[in-house]
Amino acid sequence: MTLHRKMARNLMITAIITVSGALYAAEPVQPIEPVKQVNLALAELGKKLYFDPRLSKSGFISCNSCHNLSMGGTDNLKTSIGHNWQQGPINAPTVLNSSMNVAQFWDGRAPDLKAQAGGPIANPGEMAFTHKLAVSVLESIPGYITDFKLVFGDDGIDIDKVTDAIAEFEKTLVTPNSPFDRWLLGDQQAINDQQLTGYQLFKNSGCAACHNGPAMGGTSFQKMGVVAPYHAKSPAQGLVAVTGKDADRFKFKVPTLRNVNMTYPYFHDGEAETLTEAVDVMGRLQLGKKFSEKENAQIVAFLNTLTGDQPSFQLPVLPPSSDNTPQPKPFD
Amino acid sequence: MTLHRKMARNLMITAIITVSGALYAAEPVQPIEPVKQVNLALAELGKKLYFDPRLSKSGFISCNSCHNLSMGGTDNLKTSIGHNWQQGPINAPTVLNSSMNVAQFWDGRAPDLKAQAGGPIANPGEMAFTHKLAVSVLESIPGYITDFKLVFGDDGIDIDKVTDAIAEFEKTLVTPNSPFDRWLLGDQQAINDQQLTGYQLFKNSGCAACHNGPAMGGTSFQKMGVVAPYHAKSPAQGLVAVTGKDADRFKFKVPTLRNVNMTYPYFHDGEAETLTEAVDVMGRLQLGKKFSEKENAQIVAFLNTLTGDQPSFQLPVLPPSSDNTPQPKPFD
Repeated sequence: MTLHRKMARNLMITAIITVSGALYAAEPVQPIEPVKQVNLALAELGKKLYFDPRLSKSGFISCNSCHNLSMGGTDNLKTSIGHNWQQGPINAPTVLNSSMNVAQFWDGRAPDLKAQAGGPIANPGEMAFTHKLAVSVLESIPGYITDFKLVFGDDGIDIDKVTDAIAEFEKTLVTPNSPFDRWLLGDQQAINDQQLTGYQLFKNSGCAACHNGPAMGGTSFQKMGVVAPYHAKSPAQGLVAVTGKDADRFKFKVPTLRNVNMTYPYFHDGEAETLTEAVDVMGRLQLGKKFSEKENAQIVAFLNTLTGDQPSFQLPVLPPSSDNTPQPKPFD
Repeated sequence: MTLHRKMARNLMITAIITVSGALYAAEPVQPIEPVKQVNLALAELGKKLYFDPRLSKSGFISCNSCHNLSMGGTDNLKTSIGHNWQQGPINAPTVLNSSMNVAQFWDGRAPDLKAQAGGPIANPGEMAFTHKLAVSVLESIPGYITDFKLVFGDDGIDIDKVTDAIAEFEKTLVTPNSPFDRWLLGDQQAINDQQLTGYQLFKNSGCAACHNGPAMGGTSFQKMGVVAPYHAKSPAQGLVAVTGKDADRFKFKVPTLRNVNMTYPYFHDGEAETLTEAVDVMGRLQLGKKFSEKENAQIVAFLNTLTGDQPSFQLPVLPPSSDNTPQPKPFD
């Protein structure tokens, strides 16, 4: 599916939900739905791979290192730490609810979770491995040989199966049941007056123009610095890297606001340390609006209602390496 | 309790178990017992702290980074990776069943789990933080303030409470129900003939002189290279660093053999990559015995029966930082 088709599809889904859901028919935000369809065997295999640092050259970095499921699916660092302690160029976006994104990465260069999952493994600044070497490690591990055969029904491991499994696990990482979602579903006590006022301000000020839908973001690319320029610390240029169009320079995927009080620091360069700062910058640079201290606090109070049930699962136990497993090379 | 008192106590416990357990009365190894007494609230808090990278300067390294509970309580690296990708001087020992150790670290410099837990936090080559800074981070996190108050019944957080909690969690990390333990408990089908022959060889060759008790190790310090010298890659000198006695040079704590097929690579310098190699070196250097290929395979088959039920728990969700939480400093 192309990017524009996916965006159109997402808009259709939003429209359908809006029509069918009487309680929140007039709202630009819809509740996060729990996972209803998942290949559980594939997701369980994907969970192991997600936690397995043997997919990195060092044997030390896993998907969970930078998209830590104990910490809102992020690393809570400005920019991530990669192989050999390299400083990453961009803030690690949360993996939570990322299945709802129109595309993956801040610049949308991966069309879906499966395509994304292969990226960091082979990125010299992140896990610094190759797909071929990662697969050869997995092929040497008896427990994985059995797992892949059980799940896929045939012999052999390849990067396609590996990223299929990781993506299926990531589809399970949704966070329903936030206080705000309970309010959307009719529980008027779920949020307080300050939070409700914050939501109204959020809608009326224009925030919801981009932060809408169930994930409150992730469905479009927008220029960082619409009304006034944003002086980014990161050299990242956004969507232009994918489309080659000059008009897409500094356009980044609108981040989800779900669980936003767990996914600090904020923006693609991680420069906003607090929600107060992020709301202030967004108001001034994107909307041309200077929120008063009181308004800012109201919006922040609302944003604090967006944290849902975090994914809850047993820490996976990984199948041990065999005598034939290639050794990790952390210090080469 | 002093080191010698603890060793005497452990021997007494072993004696009691041996007398009371008719099935394995004559065996030098006793089954791992499940946890029977634990302060669950304290252990749950300790679990969060164990997984919390905010106890490190970088905000990236937690206890679980090097004592990974998905991987036998180790990092499966020769030597660990510390702050700023520093190469550690020694192989990370497993945290599994470590409550049974007479002392902690390879050189026994910490008398117990609580004393150990504070070490890596403040070690410049590991988590590179200070106790004071770690506590100031925790004190800024509302969720932890509540947790500590609930668990300890009074206000305030200090390193004593932090290490108490981590140690209590670590007490839960035992691995009962291995095939060999089921055999010890009377299930004759739990191990096969090759494995049983391996166990007899293990006993008759002298391995059990040091690798005995429930943990099959952890209760004494022995010289690495008794019959022939061991040429270590690590500069570590062992127990002498604690006692100052020249006789203790190159004496290291005998490692547990529980879950040994998950805790590769082996020895304090991590130089033995496979069990085959480890058994061969131990035979020659500690016992003056060259095991044949067949004997080596029998002992390895036995060692593969020592993997018990791995700790099984929900991945903890960590309380988010507040606006007042000091920022992690990964690249300073």
